[in-house]
Amino acid sequence: ADHGRLLVQCSDQPGIVSAVSTFLTDAGANIVTLDQHSTAAEGGAFFQRTEFHLPGLAAAREDLERAFAAEVAEKFGMQFRLSEAARPKRVAIMVSKTDHCVLDLLWRNRRGELDMNVAMVISNHPDLADQVRPFGVPYFHIPATRDNRPEAEQRMLELLRGNVDLVVLARYMQIISGDFLEGVGCPLINIHHSFLPAFIGAGPYQKAKDRGVKLIGATAHYVTQDLDEGPIIEQDVVRVDHRHETADLVRLGADVERAVLSRAVRWHLEDRVARHDNTTIVF
Amino acid sequence: ADHGRLLVQCSDQPGIVSAVSTFLTDAGANIVTLDQHSTAAEGGAFFQRTEFHLPGLAAAREDLERAFAAEVAEKFGMQFRLSEAARPKRVAIMVSKTDHCVLDLLWRNRRGELDMNVAMVISNHPDLADQVRPFGVPYFHIPATRDNRPEAEQRMLELLRGNVDLVVLARYMQIISGDFLEGVGCPLINIHHSFLPAFIGAGPYQKAKDRGVKLIGATAHYVTQDLDEGPIIEQDVVRVDHRHETADLVRLGADVERAVLSRAVRWHLEDRVARHDNTTIVF
Amino acid sequence: ADHGRLLVQCSDQPGIVSAVSTFLTDAGANIVTLDQHSTAAEGGAFFQRTEFHLPGLAAAREDLERAFAAEVAEKFGMQFRLSEAARPKRVAIMVSKTDHCVLDLLWRNRRGELDMNVAMVISNHPDLADQVRPFGVPYFHIPATRDNRPEAEQRMLELLRGNVDLVVLARYMQIISGDFLEGVGCPLINIHHSFLPAFIGAGPYQKAKDRGVKLIGATAHYVTQDLDEGPIIEQDVVRVDHRHETADLVRLGADVERAVLSRAVRWHLEDRVARHDNTTIVF
Amino acid sequence: ADHGRLLVQCSDQPGIVSAVSTFLTDAGANIVTLDQHSTAAEGGAFFQRTEFHLPGLAAAREDLERAFAAEVAEKFGMQFRLSEAARPKRVAIMVSKTDHCVLDLLWRNRRGELDMNVAMVISNHPDLADQVRPFGVPYFHIPATRDNRPEAEQRMLELLRGNVDLVVLARYMQIISGDFLEGVGCPLINIHHSFLPAFIGAGPYQKAKDRGVKLIGATAHYVTQDLDEGPIIEQDVVRVDHRHETADLVRLGADVERAVLSRAVRWHLEDRVARHDNTTIVF
Repeated sequence: ADHGRLLVQCSDQPGIVSAVSTFLTDAGANIVTLDQHSTAAEGGAFFQRTEFHLPGLAAAREDLERAFAAEVAEKFGMQFRLSEAARPKRVAIMVSKTDHCVLDLLWRNRRGELDMNVAMVISNHPDLADQVRPFGVPYFHIPATRDNRPEAEQRMLELLRGNVDLVVLARYMQIISGDFLEGVGCPLINIHHSFLPAFIGAGPYQKAKDRGVKLIGATAHYVTQDLDEGPIIEQDVVRVDHRHETADLVRLGADVERAVLSRAVRWHLEDRVARHDNTTIVF
Repeated sequence: ADHGRLLVQCSDQPGIVSAVSTFLTDAGANIVTLDQHSTAAEGGAFFQRTEFHLPGLAAAREDLERAFAAEVAEKFGMQFRLSEAARPKRVAIMVSKTDHCVLDLLWRNRRGELDMNVAMVISNHPDLADQVRPFGVPYFHIPATRDNRPEAEQRMLELLRGNVDLVVLARYMQIISGDFLEGVGCPLINIHHSFLPAFIGAGPYQKAKDRGVKLIGATAHYVTQDLDEGPIIEQDVVRVDHRHETADLVRLGADVERAVLSRAVRWHLEDRVARHDNTTIVF
Repeated sequence: ADHGRLLVQCSDQPGIVSAVSTFLTDAGANIVTLDQHSTAAEGGAFFQRTEFHLPGLAAAREDLERAFAAEVAEKFGMQFRLSEAARPKRVAIMVSKTDHCVLDLLWRNRRGELDMNVAMVISNHPDLADQVRPFGVPYFHIPATRDNRPEAEQRMLELLRGNVDLVVLARYMQIISGDFLEGVGCPLINIHHSFLPAFIGAGPYQKAKDRGVKLIGATAHYVTQDLDEGPIIEQDVVRVDHRHETADLVRLGADVERAVLSRAVRWHLEDRVARHDNTTIVF
Repeated sequence: ADHGRLLVQCSDQPGIVSAVSTFLTDAGANIVTLDQHSTAAEGGAFFQRTEFHLPGLAAAREDLERAFAAEVAEKFGMQFRLSEAARPKRVAIMVSKTDHCVLDLLWRNRRGELDMNVAMVISNHPDLADQVRPFGVPYFHIPATRDNRPEAEQRMLELLRGNVDLVVLARYMQIISGDFLEGVGCPLINIHHSFLPAFIGAGPYQKAKDRGVKLIGATAHYVTQDLDEGPIIEQDVVRVDHRHETADLVRLGADVERAVLSRAVRWHLEDRVARHDNTTIVF
């Protein structure tokens, strides 16, 4: 209950680790884990993630944030975020018709592997309602096609805005507009069914079959305006050979997709992922 | 010494396996391994690789080929190739300045892992002569640049033509012309230092760093007119993270490159690789 | 519907491939896939799996078996088994309290990835009934402890005998007696939560943590009288490091367990697994 | 040239990270990388590795050590080690007849991948002298058998003592005595040709073949009195199947052995490995 996480980000300069750790120690916190990274030996960007234990964190948090801002962050020109492990993130999952990613996330959540509150599942199809609802999660069917995208996205935004800290696109096969990205006000993680940047766009397994690759993969990334071009959080692959038809690639790939997506979501929920340009640092 | 390999390829149709295996059995051969593949349930292409043991194969080979052509191949419209395991393929290795791929091939050859006679190493740089020659292999330095490519390729062709059954581009960093491909009269295998089709062309490790991928890879493929677009024989990957600089990717990738290339060469030497459109079947 | 599989096994000797393939071709079958294996160059055991397409297979099957026995099997001293792909195997799943393996099997079955009829789930605990029954599968709770094992096994045998072709132990944590193995009359596949033969017996993840291994794994094997010593069908591993507590190993291992078990079951259902001494051949 | 590494180890207690980082910062150092680990939430052991940049480190090192001992280490009851990256460790490699591990280490050293000075190669066989000496490394042949072990080890100790910081057993097939371990005065890293703790002792590939495992592996570990029981630094595996003879396992395993050993040696050379009971922390 008294477990906290502090993420900081600034231009690299001497003394940051010492300043942050001394601040926490002086505040009575015990540092449990500390990871840091500089993007270059000189003039790079600096990232640090610190997990700490501080009795009474919930009550002390606002004061702690104020003090950190005044005593440390300002001096180093830092951006920072302080979060309590005891307050799980609120998550919405968006999905179309395939079940493997959404069910795996819900199942891991039920098992306690993914520390999140799933506020809702939104789908442009009704198919998965009966599989999702037994997990105790609301299922909202909002038909979305090319033609009604603005209206559909508007309805989704009404459901999401203010209610969630993360949206997971668990094989949601509709294009997301820039307006939606701006309006939703929280990060989105998408799973793409290829080893990006190979096979961007639609039909990656068919493209993989046609090209005759010997490994297929999946990529979890933050969603940006550029389709399949956002910062990559996690990727993995599985070996295939000439005997595998495209349908076999779809089947084998599904296992990689759900594994990759669940790892990426877990890391995000634990505040392990920092973004730097179009890449990620995963502590 | 009496070990043979028969590769056949034709339109799929009933009775092929039976016809081929009966022919071999009637000729006194014992089938050691048989692999086959159809590219489709109906109307696909058929491929079969049969390893067999036949006492006196070397002496009987020409008769066997003639008989197979007349009794089996013609009926099914087959292309076929019969090879003796006791006659290792003659190989030329082409390289620029980096040592890891060529040394690994030579070292595996010396250990007996790669059953080939390395006829020569050709390089557009003199750097690796002292490392190659102790393996008992001639090293020919033929400077090749954008400007003298036709003359350089002409000299290479004079060395290669009729003397080798396979050319391995073991990190040879020059473009190969279409004229060279046609003139050399044998297959070429190249190692590309990325997980194709990602990062085609020059500088793939820098591109991988910039894109922030979480796995890097290497691809061995047959060389065709289209750069980095030939049929893929083998690929593999290794995990990387944000702490790896581009130089680390180069270092980690080198291990994948030499492993992938040596597997592809081994499979080719054992007549395990069939080509179908722009893909491979690896038995 | 007209898809068949023929598995044969005998002492290695010349002419088997030819005899089997000619028999099938003469019977009007089209060979779709043929895999064979000899355990030694001389005097080994021979195994072959042939998939074929034969119009009217269901009606012709008994005649085909009789003819094959008379014309081929007797001559070579073969054991053989002919099965129809259109008749899925009947399977019972036995489980204790952990859900990941049984749910993954049921979910893959519902998706069409595992071609089986799950006749029942048997558990020595009531916990998973609510998760299993929505898949439309009966859940039988039979309390089993050290003290009542003979009675409990007797009740299980009454449920299983004659009703199933395969029993899958999907993290069933009770010892199985030799009497049960004999009485059940079909193969059993177990998932062991370690990379066998490392960490045989109870508590493998704790043992792995104590030994400080850098990879943990799981093993699917046929069940024999000797605990954790049966023929291995499939294994896989996942990387761990010093930061992982035993609970993390349990979590990461669960993903490997369900993946390994589902592959082993799939291969068994497709008649791909032959047993030779205490090992398996997986075609 | 001004790159240093500080490793500390003590009972876990609040304020360590802050104390160490503040000490370094006050000394004018810039922390480049900091990794730490606690073995338990309460009452565990604490480990920290800090890489830093300090102009004039070579000249200042002794003063720095004295100051750290007085100002930090004593207070926390720490063991610590401060090393300069600019002073590569002196290494002896011991080998019997197989070349793959020793050649890979020498080759990586020549390439600049392994930052060490290889002082000597010692072998109980003369076979590899011609392959080792071209790397510019002395090769000492000291016949060692069961019968002359004490004398042979005595001669080796005379060569090693005071001259090396690490001994690498690169497939050295003789037993090492406890006297030798005590006398040599530096750590030893061994490569075992199995995925420990599976297949301890001699002939692991044959044992793996007999057991029918689906993956084979290799393990690099520190050498202790108990054969194959020392702290594991690194392990890896490769997939095999029923078609692989024992000789194939030896061949495929050799690639894993050299990869695993080179990673373990690299991490040791970079002071990334801490020992805790019979396990390792690899930063």
